[in-house]
Amino acid sequence: MSNYSTLVEHFSRLHHLQHFEAILSWDAATMMPNQSHQARADAMATLSLLMHESLNSPLLAECFLTLDETALTDNEKSSVREMRRVWQEASCLPADLVKQQSLAAAKCEHGWREQRAKNNWAGFSENLKEVVRLARQEADYRAKATGLGRYDALLDKFEPGMTSKKLDAIFSDLKTWLPQLIQQVIVSQNKQSIKTPLGPFLESAQKSVGEQIMTMLGFDFERGRLDVSAHPFCGGVPEDVRLTTRYSEEDFTQSLMGVVHETGHAKYEQGLPESLRHLPVGKARSTAIHESQSLFMEMQIGRSSEFLESIHRILIAELGDQDALSLDNLQKLYRQVEPSFIRVDADEVTYPAHVMLRYEIEKDLIEAKIEVDDIPFLWQEKMKAYLGVDTEGNFTNGCMQDIHWSIGAFGYFPTYTLGAMYAAQFMATMKKALPNINERIAKGDLTDIQAWLSQHIWEKGCLDTTDDLVFNATGETLNTSYFKEHLFKRYMPTDI
Amino acid sequence: MSNYSTLVEHFSRLHHLQHFEAILSWDAATMMPNQSHQARADAMATLSLLMHESLNSPLLAECFLTLDETALTDNEKSSVREMRRVWQEASCLPADLVKQQSLAAAKCEHGWREQRAKNNWAGFSENLKEVVRLARQEADYRAKATGLGRYDALLDKFEPGMTSKKLDAIFSDLKTWLPQLIQQVIVSQNKQSIKTPLGPFLESAQKSVGEQIMTMLGFDFERGRLDVSAHPFCGGVPEDVRLTTRYSEEDFTQSLMGVVHETGHAKYEQGLPESLRHLPVGKARSTAIHESQSLFMEMQIGRSSEFLESIHRILIAELGDQDALSLDNLQKLYRQVEPSFIRVDADEVTYPAHVMLRYEIEKDLIEAKIEVDDIPFLWQEKMKAYLGVDTEGNFTNGCMQDIHWSIGAFGYFPTYTLGAMYAAQFMATMKKALPNINERIAKGDLTDIQAWLSQHIWEKGCLDTTDDLVFNATGETLNTSYFKEHLFKRYMPTDI
Repeated sequence: MSNYSTLVEHFSRLHHLQHFEAILSWDAATMMPNQSHQARADAMATLSLLMHESLNSPLLAECFLTLDETALTDNEKSSVREMRRVWQEASCLPADLVKQQSLAAAKCEHGWREQRAKNNWAGFSENLKEVVRLARQEADYRAKATGLGRYDALLDKFEPGMTSKKLDAIFSDLKTWLPQLIQQVIVSQNKQSIKTPLGPFLESAQKSVGEQIMTMLGFDFERGRLDVSAHPFCGGVPEDVRLTTRYSEEDFTQSLMGVVHETGHAKYEQGLPESLRHLPVGKARSTAIHESQSLFMEMQIGRSSEFLESIHRILIAELGDQDALSLDNLQKLYRQVEPSFIRVDADEVTYPAHVMLRYEIEKDLIEAKIEVDDIPFLWQEKMKAYLGVDTEGNFTNGCMQDIHWSIGAFGYFPTYTLGAMYAAQFMATMKKALPNINERIAKGDLTDIQAWLSQHIWEKGCLDTTDDLVFNATGETLNTSYFKEHLFKRYMPTDI
Repeated sequence: MSNYSTLVEHFSRLHHLQHFEAILSWDAATMMPNQSHQARADAMATLSLLMHESLNSPLLAECFLTLDETALTDNEKSSVREMRRVWQEASCLPADLVKQQSLAAAKCEHGWREQRAKNNWAGFSENLKEVVRLARQEADYRAKATGLGRYDALLDKFEPGMTSKKLDAIFSDLKTWLPQLIQQVIVSQNKQSIKTPLGPFLESAQKSVGEQIMTMLGFDFERGRLDVSAHPFCGGVPEDVRLTTRYSEEDFTQSLMGVVHETGHAKYEQGLPESLRHLPVGKARSTAIHESQSLFMEMQIGRSSEFLESIHRILIAELGDQDALSLDNLQKLYRQVEPSFIRVDADEVTYPAHVMLRYEIEKDLIEAKIEVDDIPFLWQEKMKAYLGVDTEGNFTNGCMQDIHWSIGAFGYFPTYTLGAMYAAQFMATMKKALPNINERIAKGDLTDIQAWLSQHIWEKGCLDTTDDLVFNATGETLNTSYFKEHLFKRYMPTDI
């Protein structure tokens, strides 16, 4: 067997272990009874160990070292590039550090759940210091292995090819116009009156709305499901995509748009190249590209007047008619801009400010320019500057609101805003390619839109680097001006 | 690390692989979308391979060969006995045979689904011949490894310690009185009139009935669930037991008693010794003992007048009142004896006849005394003799009705009837130990009954052999007279 075939076989097996992890994690979040947690955790630890062993086997290292790439096709070369990336990411850290990180993360996250509720920064920061100490070590190892800077080496796990140099430029630009835009939109929206829909809206009716919209968006229910979990996500595997949402009978709007968002993720997964899904090269390109697909569906399509028009009939039929469900009011509901404490509840205009401040803090933290004790003051200052919100002394809804840092996921936050930017860029390109796109959306016909996404994004998997993927799709690499245009056009149309 | 500790570690890991298999199999039967089948099958093949590799590792063989058992406690010795059994069962077959069997079984079962519907014995028998050919080879290997006879070596997988000599004696005795009893009961029941409950009975109402009864039977919903599948089963792991049923809105009786049956399996799993569950010695004793627990709950408890009395209130409340739901009529419904074609629909009186004929045929088949082509005639003859039913030319509801042979599961059928016999023996013992047992059942209070089962069966896992387990619980090894007494007492009370 050639070394390449051996690699393919090895990574196919890893793919099956990932299948187990994906379905069992979904099960844990949706189906598993309360008290079954410990037995599952023990079993999952064995699964992690199996994956670790698989990626750290001497056979695999030998394969990569002796592989002759000259005889390979271009696709095979891409495949090797991605396999090598997965392998290096897993093998460049000493096993002992991985274990220490896993323990520190479990401790910090576990403590966080109670400490956050109690606004207990002192307790949380003690645990976080250990997580940060180990993340800095991880960054050192990864920097050495990749030749990247320390923060960039962590960022690279989620967003290969992205650097803090590029991000600094992006966020510097953002800072020149976003805080002002936010204030302008607030003033302009002050004049409008919005009606709050009056519930209760039965869970079964909301589920039916969600399923009809998913079907309209081309979700394949023969290869996927919609269920309920405390924190909505898109899980499972490409052949069996498992979406979740959560329902509040008082407010249908969040679940509805949440389903649209997760369906964006799902369509990407269901559209990945069928013949390559068992290999790293056949998986989603990056965290930001994944988010670009969910935000394309939610922000570019879902909150457009045309889309709301197309689903209006479904809403009325399932939830009953009332003034607050008029098309005009729905549009206002889905475009309300309001600076707030919480990132996950933020609208698309204020969201990047939340990301920007986290990026600035976590980058300095990893590069040891600041320490954990500096976080609360920096948070407070930046919230004031970017959003005009005062978080002094409010750790619960301030610097303790996210799970990411507690589990050591540094380098993840920027991908949310990168995703929003890519989504705007894709839509700008598509509008040129598909002139009557708005009419199609208003009719609920997304065939051509999805064909474009399939051809340019979904079917590409990781065959191209992110820059190449975006360039081939849009004629340029990331250009943030489309995002800025999108926000101004939607929220301050009179200014253009 | 001592060899014993190494064995424990090795089998703990295997236990986690079994955890994955259990939950993922449940998922495939209850949750998985239609078209996700192939991806799951591929992943499950890797899981089988991992388990095979784990049990065939040279390290494990080395451990068993060099293990010094003298320093072990009694429980540890039992533990080693069970680990060794699992290991020998897996390692005594050549990998090539295992693979051939897996392929032949998949082909035969797949074909069976369509061939059964079309009464196509000719097509099915071609595939079955290959399955039988390989099963005979398997029997040869297992016989050589265990020193048992060929059929006994297959039986031993499901029912360690049971032999065809013992079974021959059991079924010879059964043949002297069962066919007659069946005819007598039919004549006696001819006089009674039974009302058929008039549906529809909403699925949600039936589910509520099922859950209330499960709760009454002590099922722990914090460590288990009830769902729907085409073929009801009890799956999952002891810490997370997943029951299923299926609902017909025309007839609630089957689902109701099905849930009672599966809850019997579930209580056994939930009651296995907590500190040993990760090892073979902490798992259920055997297929027949497992079935004894479900049949204890269904036949000994569930169809008793006292139990029907205790759940009558729930039935009326959830399904509405009608004449056919009177206690008297319910009892008739649940004790109706009727010879029929189909084993899985059979009542407890005719059921053993179905098992007996399958046992006689499969034993001769494995020992090459008959061939696949002889099955239809033998089936026809035996159905006539034991049940007075004519199956000539009806393969669909005759010798093609079960899945077992198509997948090569020879040696499984007898455990159904052994389970019924053990259940009767346990109840007979319990009636002596707990004098007012019937009053307790009528009140829905199973505390003492379950404490007895827990102490004598559930908590024992595989610490004792089956014979020792039954002897310690009842003062004797299997004594089939209790089963005979039970049937006569319930179905021909005037004859005693």
